[in-house]
Amino acid sequence: MIKNFLGIILVLFSLSAFADEVEKWGMFELVIPGFTEGNPFIGIDLTAEFTDGERIFTPEGFYDGNGIFKIRFMPDKEGLWTYKTHSNRKELDNIKGRFTCTPPSEGNHGPVRIRDQYHFGYADGTAFYPFGTTIYEWVFQTQETRRQTLETLQSSPFNKVRFLLVPPYSEKYVSGPLKLTDFPFEGTSKETWNFSRFNVDFWQHFESCLQQILDLGIEADIILFRPYDDGKWGFDTMDDATNDRFTRYAVARLAAFRNVWWSLANENSFLDYFTEDDWDRLFKIVRDKDPYDHLRSIHNAGLIYDYTKPWVTHVSLQYYNVVRAFGASALVRDIYRKAVVNDEINYEGDIASRWGQLSGEEMGYRFWLAYTGGTYATHGEAFEHPSEINWISEGGVLRGQSPSRIAFLRQIIENAPPGGWDTIDHYYLRNVIGKHAHCYLYYFGKEKIKQWEFALPDEGLKDGMQFKVDLIDTWNMTITPVKEIFTMEKLDRYQFIDSRKRSVRLPGKPYMAMRIQRIDTGDKNE
Amino acid sequence: MIKNFLGIILVLFSLSAFADEVEKWGMFELVIPGFTEGNPFIGIDLTAEFTDGERIFTPEGFYDGNGIFKIRFMPDKEGLWTYKTHSNRKELDNIKGRFTCTPPSEGNHGPVRIRDQYHFGYADGTAFYPFGTTIYEWVFQTQETRRQTLETLQSSPFNKVRFLLVPPYSEKYVSGPLKLTDFPFEGTSKETWNFSRFNVDFWQHFESCLQQILDLGIEADIILFRPYDDGKWGFDTMDDATNDRFTRYAVARLAAFRNVWWSLANENSFLDYFTEDDWDRLFKIVRDKDPYDHLRSIHNAGLIYDYTKPWVTHVSLQYYNVVRAFGASALVRDIYRKAVVNDEINYEGDIASRWGQLSGEEMGYRFWLAYTGGTYATHGEAFEHPSEINWISEGGVLRGQSPSRIAFLRQIIENAPPGGWDTIDHYYLRNVIGKHAHCYLYYFGKEKIKQWEFALPDEGLKDGMQFKVDLIDTWNMTITPVKEIFTMEKLDRYQFIDSRKRSVRLPGKPYMAMRIQRIDTGDKNE
Repeated sequence: MIKNFLGIILVLFSLSAFADEVEKWGMFELVIPGFTEGNPFIGIDLTAEFTDGERIFTPEGFYDGNGIFKIRFMPDKEGLWTYKTHSNRKELDNIKGRFTCTPPSEGNHGPVRIRDQYHFGYADGTAFYPFGTTIYEWVFQTQETRRQTLETLQSSPFNKVRFLLVPPYSEKYVSGPLKLTDFPFEGTSKETWNFSRFNVDFWQHFESCLQQILDLGIEADIILFRPYDDGKWGFDTMDDATNDRFTRYAVARLAAFRNVWWSLANENSFLDYFTEDDWDRLFKIVRDKDPYDHLRSIHNAGLIYDYTKPWVTHVSLQYYNVVRAFGASALVRDIYRKAVVNDEINYEGDIASRWGQLSGEEMGYRFWLAYTGGTYATHGEAFEHPSEINWISEGGVLRGQSPSRIAFLRQIIENAPPGGWDTIDHYYLRNVIGKHAHCYLYYFGKEKIKQWEFALPDEGLKDGMQFKVDLIDTWNMTITPVKEIFTMEKLDRYQFIDSRKRSVRLPGKPYMAMRIQRIDTGDKNE
Repeated sequence: MIKNFLGIILVLFSLSAFADEVEKWGMFELVIPGFTEGNPFIGIDLTAEFTDGERIFTPEGFYDGNGIFKIRFMPDKEGLWTYKTHSNRKELDNIKGRFTCTPPSEGNHGPVRIRDQYHFGYADGTAFYPFGTTIYEWVFQTQETRRQTLETLQSSPFNKVRFLLVPPYSEKYVSGPLKLTDFPFEGTSKETWNFSRFNVDFWQHFESCLQQILDLGIEADIILFRPYDDGKWGFDTMDDATNDRFTRYAVARLAAFRNVWWSLANENSFLDYFTEDDWDRLFKIVRDKDPYDHLRSIHNAGLIYDYTKPWVTHVSLQYYNVVRAFGASALVRDIYRKAVVNDEINYEGDIASRWGQLSGEEMGYRFWLAYTGGTYATHGEAFEHPSEINWISEGGVLRGQSPSRIAFLRQIIENAPPGGWDTIDHYYLRNVIGKHAHCYLYYFGKEKIKQWEFALPDEGLKDGMQFKVDLIDTWNMTITPVKEIFTMEKLDRYQFIDSRKRSVRLPGKPYMAMRIQRIDTGDKNE
């Protein structure tokens, strides 16, 4: 594992610090006693160079209160790592050490990356199919609600959660039962914020929540800025220098958590105070300061951010009609040439706001349209309830009918063909994914189809190939094998049909899908 | 009209050339006898500064054969214009003159520009709703076919045509009945092209065709590059310098025709020899050399060009599924923040290629989806016929069922509310255009609706406002007024409904639309 052995030896001789052990994609934390005088949040340059002898990573350190400075590092390779700090303060400078990176523990697949342009995968090569949900404010709830949220997540289909780093303004956080004492900055109100000093208690609490999400094996889509301030706190109207420092501090503290995804903002165009240049600048800060290149996106409102920009790793889209239309998801992929997560598609629920009025059927429908369009989606739920605990805001429990359907979809999607799903003939077909000549997943949505003339796009097919069919009732969550085996015969330059020209009979119900799998080969997927 | 009178007088005193008259947005052509020796297509810098005393336009000149150089100019303001040439050749340099720009003749509204971000309008302020068609190779046909094409266009609903500047490779143009003698460059085959010399006969013929289109009041979407070369002629694999010179020559010759739109390419990503940087560079040449800022776009194939780039004035999209899905057209607008023309949506026809197999109903459906989505579309037709004259390639006559339906749609669209159509509540509603509290156009597509609960999005509405309804059968081309008058009453934060909770009854047929117009106001649109 240590390829540059001589280099390592030379470094070792010059080291005076102790050795330690950290698992691959775990977090090494260097704790440096420093000083409290002045404002240790400002004007202190602190980084460390971490090297495995071949590559150098340079995470920024941060002040964690009580005179303590920290530098966090997520090693991505087993073996010996050494480090050396650099600072404009003598106390923090030239501190050296080493640690051993051990194999990842079970369930640790590393951070999630882009896979095959339009998809996601863990660093260890395992495919990751995002099935997200939204719990914007869960971090700011009571311990009991947080415990319940984690418990709910654990038995849910969701493997990615979107939540806010900064609370939205709400009376309940000011004077209500959830009155907050900790905010990202020192102070307790618009009048008393000290934007030059971070409140480390707030950040430590946030990190403990983030660690709990990580412990569940769930990805954390962390939203840095949000517009929900109502002119009350001013977290949405800070000056550029404060926004930049806030962003750097967040990256310094959080980037070494392997499950982090950066979401620059929720509903970014509602943040009137920010120009598109501001978002570009903040994106670049995240890109340049995060040594691990975690996923980066921004969640739009009406005005859609230009996701073609090079610092955007994937599209985090709010555009409900994309997941209401056959063919639209693939279009978004084609326009941006990037992976697409439909991160807000309205919420299952019954609240007065129309964005929270989806039926379970409709939420399931939108999920199926997203996934069979070659993209991904994120769930949310907003039911009126006496507890006033609402999944999309506070977390707690799930009450809707869609999570079980999403779990069913997830099973089907995770049972992927070798190399994964991708769109099939998507300039003509709509919402068909699969792998040519291997397997196909057709979704019929609200159409009440009674028969489907067996016909497949020609790519990869040959006369005589045989396929079996499963009818999938996406609402009732059943998979029913069709008795017939279909044998391919070329029809024209585009299609193969069944040699006996048979159709597949369907029950004439909405929300049906169909899985077609080749059976005359050893490499079928079930 | 001449605001800077003193400036003009001063210029006048220095002029020696004759005066002339040209109508506004007409073409002034300065003809300069020069020389034939050497290669007058290469290395001759020739421009003229045209000024109305306030602004200066600097079109490039071009060599037109037989020792003649020309500079063309399209004045955009009535009154006196003066000019002065600049050249690195003494014979062509420092030629001065003036002409008077007279009022535009009837039907001359100037070039088409972007209007209100997502729409089009003539320079004189008249709205322009593009209803395009495609006749790629019409310029290269016999005189009789060209005559027929123009005759067909004259009685068609089409006010914009897309066609190629350079013929595609075809046996019929090499040895068949249409054997071409003229090509953009001198020579008659891959072996004999002289890419450093243009064939002025070819260009003059092209211009005469362009003028005929102009005379019909039709916009010309001229395609500069195309991939249809099949390795035979090499017009798709010329070097950068040749492509640049070709583009500049086209702009110098054609930009002064007021009906020109620049289409950098058809199916650009099929031109393997061109990188995206090449397209960017060619776009910039057109932008920088065209003094009149004619519309600029590029027509994509599989890989979609990044239409967010600043030199793109509007989206010229080939993505069939956009016009097959409710809500998708508005999405494309929102992504690019530009006007969208669906310039290829498959063709009505019966040919073996699947892109030419639309029924008339389907073509009409796609047009309605485009226009009620706040975008525009372009027609094409490809029927097998003994004459082997096919509208999308050669022109001739129209045989399909969609043109009459497109004419019907055009009437409805041109009967626009003050300020024009735009999408209504398009993050939730799909394919509804209109003007809030004034008029609404709903399209129902293939849904066979029997009743529609009268409900309008709340914007601009007040209790008591009254609306009438027309049922539009888009296939049978009928407009049937509904007897009832509907009176508005607020339902909730999003909607107004009829105060008597009535519905509109529909005939349960596909391809229906509904026009809702306010009647309790003087400014209704019919």
